[in-house]
Amino acid sequence: MPKINFSNPAQFLGMETPYEASKVVVFGAPFDGTTSNKAGTKFAANAMRLESEGLETYSPLLDLDLEAALVYDAGNIELSYGVTTRVMSELEAATSRLLADGKIPLMIGGEHLVSYPVVKAIAKLHPDVHIIHLDAHTDLRDEFGGSPLSHATVLKRIWDLLGDGRIFQFGIRSGTKAEFDFARQAGHTYLEAFRLQTVGHVLEQLSGKKVYVTIDLDVLDPSMMSGTGTPEAGGITYRELESFFLLLRDAHVDIVGADVVELSPGHDPSGVSTATACKVLREMALILNNNEMMSTPSK
Amino acid sequence: MPKINFSNPAQFLGMETPYEASKVVVFGAPFDGTTSNKAGTKFAANAMRLESEGLETYSPLLDLDLEAALVYDAGNIELSYGVTTRVMSELEAATSRLLADGKIPLMIGGEHLVSYPVVKAIAKLHPDVHIIHLDAHTDLRDEFGGSPLSHATVLKRIWDLLGDGRIFQFGIRSGTKAEFDFARQAGHTYLEAFRLQTVGHVLEQLSGKKVYVTIDLDVLDPSMMSGTGTPEAGGITYRELESFFLLLRDAHVDIVGADVVELSPGHDPSGVSTATACKVLREMALILNNNEMMSTPSK
Amino acid sequence: MPKINFSNPAQFLGMETPYEASKVVVFGAPFDGTTSNKAGTKFAANAMRLESEGLETYSPLLDLDLEAALVYDAGNIELSYGVTTRVMSELEAATSRLLADGKIPLMIGGEHLVSYPVVKAIAKLHPDVHIIHLDAHTDLRDEFGGSPLSHATVLKRIWDLLGDGRIFQFGIRSGTKAEFDFARQAGHTYLEAFRLQTVGHVLEQLSGKKVYVTIDLDVLDPSMMSGTGTPEAGGITYRELESFFLLLRDAHVDIVGADVVELSPGHDPSGVSTATACKVLREMALILNNNEMMSTPSK
Amino acid sequence: MPKINFSNPAQFLGMETPYEASKVVVFGAPFDGTTSNKAGTKFAANAMRLESEGLETYSPLLDLDLEAALVYDAGNIELSYGVTTRVMSELEAATSRLLADGKIPLMIGGEHLVSYPVVKAIAKLHPDVHIIHLDAHTDLRDEFGGSPLSHATVLKRIWDLLGDGRIFQFGIRSGTKAEFDFARQAGHTYLEAFRLQTVGHVLEQLSGKKVYVTIDLDVLDPSMMSGTGTPEAGGITYRELESFFLLLRDAHVDIVGADVVELSPGHDPSGVSTATACKVLREMALILNNNEMMSTPSK
Amino acid sequence: MPKINFSNPAQFLGMETPYEASKVVVFGAPFDGTTSNKAGTKFAANAMRLESEGLETYSPLLDLDLEAALVYDAGNIELSYGVTTRVMSELEAATSRLLADGKIPLMIGGEHLVSYPVVKAIAKLHPDVHIIHLDAHTDLRDEFGGSPLSHATVLKRIWDLLGDGRIFQFGIRSGTKAEFDFARQAGHTYLEAFRLQTVGHVLEQLSGKKVYVTIDLDVLDPSMMSGTGTPEAGGITYRELESFFLLLRDAHVDIVGADVVELSPGHDPSGVSTATACKVLREMALILNNNEMMSTPSK
Amino acid sequence: MPKINFSNPAQFLGMETPYEASKVVVFGAPFDGTTSNKAGTKFAANAMRLESEGLETYSPLLDLDLEAALVYDAGNIELSYGVTTRVMSELEAATSRLLADGKIPLMIGGEHLVSYPVVKAIAKLHPDVHIIHLDAHTDLRDEFGGSPLSHATVLKRIWDLLGDGRIFQFGIRSGTKAEFDFARQAGHTYLEAFRLQTVGHVLEQLSGKKVYVTIDLDVLDPSMMSGTGTPEAGGITYRELESFFLLLRDAHVDIVGADVVELSPGHDPSGVSTATACKVLREMALILNNNEMMSTPSK
Repeated sequence: MPKINFSNPAQFLGMETPYEASKVVVFGAPFDGTTSNKAGTKFAANAMRLESEGLETYSPLLDLDLEAALVYDAGNIELSYGVTTRVMSELEAATSRLLADGKIPLMIGGEHLVSYPVVKAIAKLHPDVHIIHLDAHTDLRDEFGGSPLSHATVLKRIWDLLGDGRIFQFGIRSGTKAEFDFARQAGHTYLEAFRLQTVGHVLEQLSGKKVYVTIDLDVLDPSMMSGTGTPEAGGITYRELESFFLLLRDAHVDIVGADVVELSPGHDPSGVSTATACKVLREMALILNNNEMMSTPSK
Repeated sequence: MPKINFSNPAQFLGMETPYEASKVVVFGAPFDGTTSNKAGTKFAANAMRLESEGLETYSPLLDLDLEAALVYDAGNIELSYGVTTRVMSELEAATSRLLADGKIPLMIGGEHLVSYPVVKAIAKLHPDVHIIHLDAHTDLRDEFGGSPLSHATVLKRIWDLLGDGRIFQFGIRSGTKAEFDFARQAGHTYLEAFRLQTVGHVLEQLSGKKVYVTIDLDVLDPSMMSGTGTPEAGGITYRELESFFLLLRDAHVDIVGADVVELSPGHDPSGVSTATACKVLREMALILNNNEMMSTPSK
Repeated sequence: MPKINFSNPAQFLGMETPYEASKVVVFGAPFDGTTSNKAGTKFAANAMRLESEGLETYSPLLDLDLEAALVYDAGNIELSYGVTTRVMSELEAATSRLLADGKIPLMIGGEHLVSYPVVKAIAKLHPDVHIIHLDAHTDLRDEFGGSPLSHATVLKRIWDLLGDGRIFQFGIRSGTKAEFDFARQAGHTYLEAFRLQTVGHVLEQLSGKKVYVTIDLDVLDPSMMSGTGTPEAGGITYRELESFFLLLRDAHVDIVGADVVELSPGHDPSGVSTATACKVLREMALILNNNEMMSTPSK
Repeated sequence: MPKINFSNPAQFLGMETPYEASKVVVFGAPFDGTTSNKAGTKFAANAMRLESEGLETYSPLLDLDLEAALVYDAGNIELSYGVTTRVMSELEAATSRLLADGKIPLMIGGEHLVSYPVVKAIAKLHPDVHIIHLDAHTDLRDEFGGSPLSHATVLKRIWDLLGDGRIFQFGIRSGTKAEFDFARQAGHTYLEAFRLQTVGHVLEQLSGKKVYVTIDLDVLDPSMMSGTGTPEAGGITYRELESFFLLLRDAHVDIVGADVVELSPGHDPSGVSTATACKVLREMALILNNNEMMSTPSK
Repeated sequence: MPKINFSNPAQFLGMETPYEASKVVVFGAPFDGTTSNKAGTKFAANAMRLESEGLETYSPLLDLDLEAALVYDAGNIELSYGVTTRVMSELEAATSRLLADGKIPLMIGGEHLVSYPVVKAIAKLHPDVHIIHLDAHTDLRDEFGGSPLSHATVLKRIWDLLGDGRIFQFGIRSGTKAEFDFARQAGHTYLEAFRLQTVGHVLEQLSGKKVYVTIDLDVLDPSMMSGTGTPEAGGITYRELESFFLLLRDAHVDIVGADVVELSPGHDPSGVSTATACKVLREMALILNNNEMMSTPSK
Repeated sequence: MPKINFSNPAQFLGMETPYEASKVVVFGAPFDGTTSNKAGTKFAANAMRLESEGLETYSPLLDLDLEAALVYDAGNIELSYGVTTRVMSELEAATSRLLADGKIPLMIGGEHLVSYPVVKAIAKLHPDVHIIHLDAHTDLRDEFGGSPLSHATVLKRIWDLLGDGRIFQFGIRSGTKAEFDFARQAGHTYLEAFRLQTVGHVLEQLSGKKVYVTIDLDVLDPSMMSGTGTPEAGGITYRELESFFLLLRDAHVDIVGADVVELSPGHDPSGVSTATACKVLREMALILNNNEMMSTPSK
């Protein structure tokens, strides 16, 4: 390489800590093979990396700076996207490897199904993991389009894995009556519809426990997140999400991983959805890094 | 027809009750001939039918399900769109026929002028009908672009028909000074500017009365409804509209018809406006069906 | 149903001949599950039906009119889109049923993989069928993204079925070196790169034979067909396609089926791609109907 | 006004000759009230004025420069757009006034119907006027959408006015069978379908005669003119239009007026259609000015 | 000019008071030469003029009407946009000239850097001027992209000019840590992050003082202002901006100028951002006119 | 790094030869600071890298494969984009360094001005270099927007450097009369307007000479290249460009560098322009690599 200053569009802004020194490892899972409505989430991670140039590394909300955080963006995982079961194995294996290296995984989807193999790998290491799930949709179907592995079944598959009392759903405003009954009447999951007003209370309850956070970006109102496959009016505002970030930063839980999924950049030609997704990823990376820093001695 | 499963894109999702058995009949009025600004509302009904595939039939907000409702989507009415007065007659005749068959009409616009012939037909059957009007604009001009029949004059034409004390306007935030003076100073209509905080009070006042509900989708803030001809900043949020839906579901009024107008799908390339319009239509169909079910014995 | 004139957006303009009386049956195959690049072809058939309202039924090029043709648009086939192998079975079964009823199938994709089950059904009835293939891409890979069933392998799968000397490819301008070598050096298929100047000669050669025509719309230059997943510059012009239509109308072959695939309507916000796809479908429907009419006595 | 240099976006680039000194007067007719498909041509003239800043005044094709031409852009005519018959009168009156002042009118549409009142005014002054008509559509219907005044009937209305042997149509590729029969079999108009290869021959035939030129921009292929309401594949290329411009510049006809209609700027978000329409207008303005200059002494 | 009614797209709706009689002069500054992210603000002023046709002159919020206000839209200032320092001089000179004529300047950007020369001219006349700054970004960098003159440094340059205690920043939610430290820790400016809840209090403090108001439209949440170069989630709502307008209308300050900057119309294809910017400009013009009217006697 | 397969979006597909082993080095110059019309070319290089995933490495036109070529994509050069003169120095220095290492530079613009410093560096090493220039615009102004350094002056600056007889311009169809006169009447450059029919003849004339090729993508017709700042109708077709590629591949010239400039990806939401630019870059990289391979022994 010549001694010219070249910039590398391969990495999200401010996530250049070398792998070995990093605490949090960001990676993309460019898969949208089961998407029933408008596809395109496979392009999210790369679109976010490019768009991240318009972002600052400093978060005035959290008063934390990526420049001072140990975060590494490893790029996208190469997937056999034509065979869903193989994709599941590839994502589980990659996550297990990161965990073996002592890293906290922070995945960029892809469609929501990609959360399943990551949680599977994490649950092997932390069988007592709890799930904080922000979404517009219940994702509790048992099968969809003829298949048990789908963006619309992912939380049901995770429930198969973890059982009752482990899944906490917020912002939910769409699903079949059967899905809502499964959650609410049978009590298999904790479900706050439409908002996330009880998330502070839940985080207190989970104090001291392992937590995985999965953010389906369509939990946000489509007015600010039109770049997603199945927009649902009546979502949470970004300010409500900011409250969540502050609560999560200050919670006494042990965050063992997280993901930000379902950005479909092409469906929002204004670019606002991608810019917003970048900001969500920055805040989550800062929170994970901060959480890991604080909890490291006690591990 | 062969015994293959073909799906029919002709009908809005979940509105397949046969005409004879139906209580609520949905139809499209693809007319935008007087639109002064950006046109395209003539495409709304068909765009919504296609987009409705991304929606669930169940409304967690209302806890009602289209699967259990007696709603039939009849398609679009064929209109002589080149001659506005003839379009008025065609829409009035179609509505009268639906009323004669004991159906509750739920129209998808088209521009707002299409509400006029529908109200005209309804007022013949129910001369005491009251109008609940959600809109960004007063629509109280006496003529526009040289014509008395216009999207900008529709409420004035309805006032010609019904007179003082019958029209209740909410969310209004645009109009000439003369229009606001007509409503407010002369008291010809009830007008709440900018919000719909008094709608609950108004619905109580109208208890026991016949009510027609006309929703110009531009009452919503353009942040969530950019797909409309004349977007006006400072509109109501979808959550405020949800409060309206809950109040309307529980109100002791007799809803004799409704419409959802002014979606211009092409002006929102993200598709969010169309998806939101679908949700508004679903909630209105559920409310009309529910209202009819509850009121049927006493009729 | 009341005696109001409702129009039915469920059918492509001018394709309302009852099934029983029809010769040509159009249906949609809304599947894009293996799409590696930009997806969205699952929306093509319905988008085309709506857009067809802007088209005339008369073709001045062919001097044929849909009003006088026996074409029925049956809607979309319902697919278990989450399981590719099941989708293959469903499409093959539907095609077989149409063939059993003596209909000529004309499919609207979907991605190109949907041609495979249709050809499979046809090859059972007509084992000697030949394929006229217009495309930008060879589609001759043996597997793609880990799977043998893919839009990028569809012609290879058809070759598995039919063998050498049956496939005639035109307009091809993209593929791996190995794919071109397979076609050209091994001579497994006839391949004219970039153009379709030899199609008249080939049709003469196939005189008297059964022919299936599969048109991947990306054979057209992206200047007029930007609404497709993988646009490739340097394509054929619409006028060159018109020459093909005239040659095909006048050819002495027995056309046993056809498809028009790979329109992705959302990727061309101007709507030109969808309008053009409608015109291609109209011309193909007219040609199939005409071909069937002329050949009927001799069958 | 202060002595600051302000630029005036009100006028098309290079068309600032004072009215009194001008030979050619450009004006906009922002009307699209009868548009059956996608509307928006009412915005064309103003969009073109703004876009004209990206154009040069010099045409290398014609070797003529707007800087040296006597062209004045008068802005848009104010129209009672809600009443089509009144719009017709207003446009006819405005044109008559320009003719009375000895100006050559060059109108920017609007939909194609606006050509009718302009031709009407011109035919009063020049009863022997001939029409050169470039279009994708025949526009020879007798009524459309219930009305005799429509973009789809405009050439029929002009034929009512002028009779047989006066209308020369080029590039036509869409219409009903009846329309083509009217033109071709009855010979009411001269119609070259698909191309304009005979336009040079026709211009020679019209040598010495008065000619009005009406260019519906959808005569161009939608690959370069997607910003129009009803795009039709298989159109003429811009280079073919350039040949027309050269023939027209050199023809020995007396051009008494012209129009450029049916640009719908919002339907081409890339802006190419508007930029192309500007170039067409510039070339037409240069040709009209040149034609007038050459013919002035002999008038 | 003939006696035809031509409309002039050169001026913002309702701003046709002759220069001499006007109190408030609106002008465009079409410059975006230092934009680091997505450019296009140079097109804002003209796009707003065209879009203003969809607006009413009456503001129901302020109960003021442009028809009764003395506002003149002078068009755009011609700029040597290739040389940033020259652009600064040109804008300063133009502003000085307006001030010399006793006019209140209301500028439409362009990028935010254009505020600097305007404030410079104003500070010569009113050395005690205070700045009310609404923005998503601090704009307090000392240099950006190698240059001291940049949209990202504009408030720092104004601070160089005016010093401590003069700049009041609201809605700020993005910047480097160093910028926030400069404002907050060193106290060089007053900075309310994320909201504008303290603006009423600040306006009271500034009672009787000269005030310049600069509104970077990206202070609004990108859900309603996607047409800007660097959208930042978590912004203020339009309703919060309405509260600001009411406070400003009623404040006892002497407003000596204002600007509305950073609209990039092309990045919001729905047109909502441009429509919203028009409304902001109308409200500001009404407030400036009202403020000037009330303060005129005491001057 | 863990042993997971991560893909790197930082490099154009198939350009992963290590720097040391490479013959051709691709780099991006993300600068559009002097753009007078629609900006956005600064985003071209990264957008092309992402889009390149949809491309094959093999060119059936040239029968050459990037897999077998020694091409390295070095990323973007970091530029002080706020100071045009500094950007010029940075690009010249980077090019000189590449030349010193024996590499053939292939630059992705950015606006056209970036060609100037690259040619400057090359002319120091090869004072006898000739320029093949494909463009819609003459780019021969002496200053633009007040500055001598502009996208509209770049060929004039190169002429200042190289003098008469060195510049060969093709496809030109826009410019001032003075620019055309400069080229044609004074004979300072060779200029073929509208087409590139004489390029084969010119390449023969330049046999044995050093040649630099600069391709402004707007030389292509906007029907296939709408994603550029100043689209000009009447451009060359992609097939004509293919003829150029074949002539250039077979020419006996020594290509010492090249660039592909003026893609503005955001202005073509369909993505076709970016995909086409990728294909142009692939063909140029293959040609440069091939040319270098063949000429290496004789150097």
